[in-house]
Order: sequence, then structure tokens, then C-alpha cells
Amino acid sequence: MVSAEERSRRRILLTVAYDGTAYHGWQVQNNGITIESELNRCLSELFGEKIAVIGASRTDAGVHALGNLAVFDTSARMPAEKMAYALNQRLPEDIRIQCSREVAGDWHPRRCESRKTYEYRIYRGEFPQPIKRLYALFVYRKLDVERMREAASYLVGEHDFKSFCQTGAQVESTVRRIYELTVEEQGQDLVIRVCGNGFLYNMVRIIAGTLLEAGEGRRSPRDMQTILDKRDRAAAGPTAPAHGLTLVKYDWD
Amino acid sequence: MVSAEERSRRRILLTVAYDGTAYHGWQVQNNGITIESELNRCLSELFGEKIAVIGASRTDAGVHALGNLAVFDTSARMPAEKMAYALNQRLPEDIRIQCSREVAGDWHPRRCESRKTYEYRIYRGEFPQPIKRLYALFVYRKLDVERMREAASYLVGEHDFKSFCQTGAQVESTVRRIYELTVEEQGQDLVIRVCGNGFLYNMVRIIAGTLLEAGEGRRSPRDMQTILDKRDRAAAGPTAPAHGLTLVKYDWD
Repeated sequence: MVSAEERSRRRILLTVAYDGTAYHGWQVQNNGITIESELNRCLSELFGEKIAVIGASRTDAGVHALGNLAVFDTSARMPAEKMAYALNQRLPEDIRIQCSREVAGDWHPRRCESRKTYEYRIYRGEFPQPIKRLYALFVYRKLDVERMREAASYLVGEHDFKSFCQTGAQVESTVRRIYELTVEEQGQDLVIRVCGNGFLYNMVRIIAGTLLEAGEGRRSPRDMQTILDKRDRAAAGPTAPAHGLTLVKYDWD
Repeated sequence: MVSAEERSRRRILLTVAYDGTAYHGWQVQNNGITIESELNRCLSELFGEKIAVIGASRTDAGVHALGNLAVFDTSARMPAEKMAYALNQRLPEDIRIQCSREVAGDWHPRRCESRKTYEYRIYRGEFPQPIKRLYALFVYRKLDVERMREAASYLVGEHDFKSFCQTGAQVESTVRRIYELTVEEQGQDLVIRVCGNGFLYNMVRIIAGTLLEAGEGRRSPRDMQTILDKRDRAAAGPTAPAHGLTLVKYDWD
């Protein structure tokens, strides 16, 4: 039998933005403060019940987000839309809820068809720009943007991205679909923007590291096909540093 | 008579970029680390002689710079162009020299005809964006950009900006010339960009605070003329917070 309290429980979806600089990534861990642990702490304080969120993307230390997702269940009576304001009063200023709303009780952020968008930002200059140091990778070497675009084109579509997955990651399938992968110049910034149905562990950072090698002339754009075919992490370029990466948004139907 | 050492002394001009978040402003003071004190410390260590820079703009705590200027004299033999690299090895990562070069021995950054450009950045949203929190003023209220532009137009040209100068500042004249004052939308950001031959203490931040009042509908754009005419700080709007302000560049002939 379902209790009255169970019936009154609602599932709330949060859109979460954060500056990842000060955190040990998203996921709760024993030896450091994480985005997830801060959300759990503030939600539990706010509602006076133990709450544990389920996140959509377990971003690494130093990675930023404009729109990660988290859900939790609560029997609190506060209107869902007000929760963003109440939570932001308690959260540290480098985490800010952008939206809070009720979703179906069985909605799960990792079990829905979604399009995820990431940006990897590069700052090109002779010297680093201090106000960008935490949000963009500084690159001194000259980059051939057209070569990077050509290299990127090989990755669009459905492929086995095993070569672009950190070894040791446990996943059933390494096949993913990239809908769009662009390299855009924004003044001295270069923004690699990728939209796909899902990403393997470190996949966007390995793509960025490999596109950078193409841009520096150390790889031919056509190498990308070879890398895909090898299904071997060692075939791709290095994992680009975390701080250039931002999870931009999740879209779903 | 001029000694051999005096003859070999050179004046070096540095273009200095910094994230002002962690500093008590530019100017050396007793109770806190400043941009100037860090430059003096690193230059003195590097060259093994006591060096004190002269800065172009004494920015306040929290204000950022892409291109502030500083000069110093040294008898060190290092090629001027290499000094940027050597200094950046020693400076904290939130200060980075962008250029180092020799200038005439009597060149002084505050005694030359120059055009100074500042940007005041505003982030418009329902909630703050964590990765912008240190570099843009968060504004929740709706802003009428056209009203802000109309208000800004009254300030272009040569005027007595006494109403836009922090009271207590000691200056001979409060007349300045603004060459350009624009309000540009960059996605959710709004950038007030101002170029002039000089700025009074807090002038850009008071202009920003007053334009924001016009944008919020709390002032008519035509008020700007009245404010100028009154020559009274109390007539203008509030001083906008420091962290939205960035000194972009100095140009001179």
C-alpha cells in the first residue's frame, strides 16, 4: 500500500550552473567538496529531510556547467518554481540553480533521450589572459582553424568512439552519435562546440586534444578516420585540461 | 656629471593584464597585496635591485585589466622584449605581462596624451551565472537598452564630469572628453564601452550606475544633461560595483 507521504512525494528537476574551479567535480566523494555534495547538503537543510540528488553528468574537477541537471524526490510543499530561489540563498556563490520544476515521478536524467551540448574554449595569445585563465585553455602555438574544422567533420554522425574514451571506463557500448561539432572563432577565443546524444568518459576533452593536434599541424585531418577505426585510446590525442570545458545544456523531448 | 650606470639605465614599459578579484587594487598599501606591490616584488627579485613601477591607472579593488600600463627604470641588461617572459615566470597567475618594451627615458604613463578604454559588463538573467560572477554585474531587472543608449549619448564629447566623480577626489579640473560611449548586447551580456582622454575617480562606475537607472526606467535619458549641469555627485546614480569593470587598453601616439 502506498502511504499518504509516498503519494505526496514529488520529483523535482534542477538546472544547475557552476564554476567548477573550487570543486572535486560533480560526484560525492570522501575527500573533497563536490557539486553533488553541496546540493545534497543545501537541499537537506532546506527541507529538513535527507535528500540525495541524481545528476545527469558527473563532470570532472575543474569542469564548468551552465546547465547540468539533477533530480530529487521530496515531500516538501514548497512550489517547485520557488525552490531555485530558496536553494540559491543557501548555495555557495559558485553554484546557482537556473530553474526548478516538477517532472514525472519516474523521469531520470540519465535514462532519457537527450541532446547534450558541451563547449571547449581555447584562448589564443602570446601570453595568458588572467581573467580567462580558469575558463579557457591558453594556447600559444598558432592554430590552423580550417584544419581543425576538417578534422572535426570526420567525427560527426554515429561512430564507435572507443578511441576517444578514457581507458578503464566501464560502458556497455562505445557507440555514440555526434549531431554537430563546430570550431568557432570568437575574437582571440576558439570555441569547439559539440552536440551529441551522449559522451563517453573524457570524450569531449580527448576530441579537443586531438583537434588541437590537427590545428598545430601535428596530425592530418584525415587521421581522424584512422583513429576512429583503431578503437584504441592510444591512437587519439591527449586529454585536454578540464578547465576549458563547459557543459552548456541538455535538451530533451 | 652622469655616471656610467645612469647612462645605461633604461625605461621599460609594461602592458599589464590582471584579474583584480584577489587584490586590494593597483596601488601599494600597507594592509594588503596589490598589483603594484606584486610587480615591484617580482621586478626587484628578477633584477636584484629595488624597483618601483609607476602605473597609468590606479584601479580599485576588484577591477580587472587587459592592458594597464606601468613603467620602471633599470640598469639590467636583459633585452626589454624578454622581460615579459621572465616576469610572467615569477608573477602569480592572475597577473600577466602582455608586452614589455623600452621607451624614452622621460616617457610617463600619466603625462601623455592617450585614449583610455574601459568596459563595464552586465549579465542579465533570472539567476546569476557562476562563471561570470567575478567579471560582470548580475542584473535581474529588465533593462531598456535603447534608453541606455540615448542616455549615454549626452555624455559624449567634452564636459565637466564633476557629477560623475567620487567626492573627495583631488583633481585640478573635472573636465574630460569622452570620444565614444556605446552599449552593446552580447547575448545575455550588456557591455558599456567608454573611450576617453581621461577618467575621474570612479567616473566609469558612476556612469554605469547612472545608465543602469536609465535602463530600469527610473530616470529619463534627458536627465543626463541635468546631472552634468548640476556638477554635484549627488545628482548622478550610484557607483556600480567594481567587479564589472575592466580597463581594456591605452592608446597613445
